[in-house]
Amino acid sequence: PKIVTLPGDGIGPEVTAAAVAVLREVAPDVTIEEHLIGGVAYDTHGDPFPQVTRDALKDADAVLLGTVGGAQDSAWNLLPRHLRPESGLLALRKALGCYANLRPVRVQPGLEHLSPLKAELARGVDILIVRELLGGVYFDGDRKIDGDTAYNTMRYTTPEVERVARVAFWAAEQRKGRVTSVDKANVLEVSELWRRDVTALRDREYRGVHLNHEYVDSVAMLIVSDPSRYDVIVTENLFGDILSDLAAVIPGSLGLMPSASLGDGAGLFEPIHGSAPDIAGKGVANPAAAIMSAGMLLRHGLKRPEGANQIDRAVALALREHPTRDLGGQADTQTFTRAVLSALE
Amino acid sequence: PKIVTLPGDGIGPEVTAAAVAVLREVAPDVTIEEHLIGGVAYDTHGDPFPQVTRDALKDADAVLLGTVGGAQDSAWNLLPRHLRPESGLLALRKALGCYANLRPVRVQPGLEHLSPLKAELARGVDILIVRELLGGVYFDGDRKIDGDTAYNTMRYTTPEVERVARVAFWAAEQRKGRVTSVDKANVLEVSELWRRDVTALRDREYRGVHLNHEYVDSVAMLIVSDPSRYDVIVTENLFGDILSDLAAVIPGSLGLMPSASLGDGAGLFEPIHGSAPDIAGKGVANPAAAIMSAGMLLRHGLKRPEGANQIDRAVALALREHPTRDLGGQADTQTFTRAVLSALE
Ligand SMILES: CC(C)[C@H](C(=O)O)[C@@H](O)C(=O)O
Ligand SMILES: CC(C)[C@H](C(=O)O)[C@@H](O)C(=O)O
Repeated sequence: PKIVTLPGDGIGPEVTAAAVAVLREVAPDVTIEEHLIGGVAYDTHGDPFPQVTRDALKDADAVLLGTVGGAQDSAWNLLPRHLRPESGLLALRKALGCYANLRPVRVQPGLEHLSPLKAELARGVDILIVRELLGGVYFDGDRKIDGDTAYNTMRYTTPEVERVARVAFWAAEQRKGRVTSVDKANVLEVSELWRRDVTALRDREYRGVHLNHEYVDSVAMLIVSDPSRYDVIVTENLFGDILSDLAAVIPGSLGLMPSASLGDGAGLFEPIHGSAPDIAGKGVANPAAAIMSAGMLLRHGLKRPEGANQIDRAVALALREHPTRDLGGQADTQTFTRAVLSALE
Repeated sequence: PKIVTLPGDGIGPEVTAAAVAVLREVAPDVTIEEHLIGGVAYDTHGDPFPQVTRDALKDADAVLLGTVGGAQDSAWNLLPRHLRPESGLLALRKALGCYANLRPVRVQPGLEHLSPLKAELARGVDILIVRELLGGVYFDGDRKIDGDTAYNTMRYTTPEVERVARVAFWAAEQRKGRVTSVDKANVLEVSELWRRDVTALRDREYRGVHLNHEYVDSVAMLIVSDPSRYDVIVTENLFGDILSDLAAVIPGSLGLMPSASLGDGAGLFEPIHGSAPDIAGKGVANPAAAIMSAGMLLRHGLKRPEGANQIDRAVALALREHPTRDLGGQADTQTFTRAVLSALE
């Protein structure tokens, strides 16, 4: 199998290198091909998602991404929107047809103390957030900034809602059988459609799954103050962006949050943290989320669950013994990665 | 001065009654006139914001609101959107021209243990969230659900951004002098306008205030895991809705979050919690947020800061000695209210 890696900007190259080292150990038969995306791709090719990267994806079985983007005051942010690093990432998601972004939120036994929450709240949390990734306000063509007015459009269609809801129901069937669909149906028509279509699909095809609906503002509070009430959460693109970053509070760091984006073709696997330009190049970034994303790549992309489990166990061990700085520890990227490698059985 | 109270639905009447009792004690010269809004107004008048309520607002100096809306499966939610309880609230905000919603997030000394956060994180938190309340995806006319497609439009104009940013800068000048403006400018054109206009206004008129910009997903995580980094937060309507509910995690309950909505005419003062239909009528709701909203009414609506301070001190005392059930205590609505009344000096 062929994997394309796209290290990207900021700490992306460091954490991707760590993930690749682990991947080579667990799946030595895999071919790995590296390409450019984001700001570095713009700097080299004048395009944050250049044709040579696009071409490389054609026969890829899975894609491992680092991070894209610069600091708030980066020169990249002065470029026209379609040339900025983030546009490269959005175009990549679109090109791969990855409409379902899976973001597991798990507190490993023995790691409750890393959470800013009281230990009894963090203990045992195991939530899967399924974020719609190709629709809503992110991609709708009807958007403009012009003089003293600007707007974006949050749009969904029934097929878009159903395909991501299917992933959530399917996942719930492997888990505790409960899905919470998150919207703002008391204010938004687009949420009314979302709620109607998710409900109809459940009634038609997933009658064994328990479904409830909650408002996004309420979930934002409850996911932190009472996380164990949730099993699978499914929501639209922007709400999913906010809630899944927020959920990183529970394990204690964005550095512990991997993701898998699934859809029509090859899957895309990426840590959900940003490019952290303030610590880039210093060798101190926490590579756990990138390494766990490589685990999700093995599980969902290459259908090798044992390899994925091996990685998850090794990361949990390394986190206990060599916590990185974002977790209040001392380990740098290399120390942590070596700890994972030596914990692999 | 004349105050209109709009108790609304669910626990609204109970918590409003508590707030009125405190208000009568602290400001005995105030005239109070009660009217209908929300679901109960629809049930009586066929309109969630009836003309008789509109008329009563004309000579009001301030409005004290309870809560509106029913359970997720309430019959009100089957009505056409403009007849639902929430539409009554949105129409009220519009009618009063309240474009700046102030939501203070404060952890009183001695009440850190109520927070799900570790005490050292909660201690001393004092954030003011300024939410734009009359624009964005809430009010734009361009919205539709039709067959298998639906959309809403998130729109802002420069004057809308400037008037709410002014309130944030003004508030920062009374506080620590720092404003964080929250947007999603890496994806949204409407955020690009927001960021540009907030920055320009600061550069033109508030050069003494320190301004920075952060993405909404990042703030969602940081406001909980590192709340003391924030002084004043200013953001658009939907992001403000989510972030301010979320921020209730810090003090420990939505029941501790009052709000003031200011604008062209009379201010609107309301707790940010919902109607909690599951406990409505049982006499156990926490009235602290409603009582503190009455305090904000005295401060911002009637310019009586001493009365407001009196209420804040009494509520803090009552919370220490008679915590309500949402805070893990035993006090019911009446016990808590009596405790506040007897703690007033
Ligand atoms: C960088 C940005 C465009 C992206 C998003 O909003 O999707 C990021 O926040 C994420 O969650 O992957
Ligand atoms: C009830 C609802 C319309 C309202 C809002 O979204 O503004 C509520 O959540 C709030 O925050 O006051």
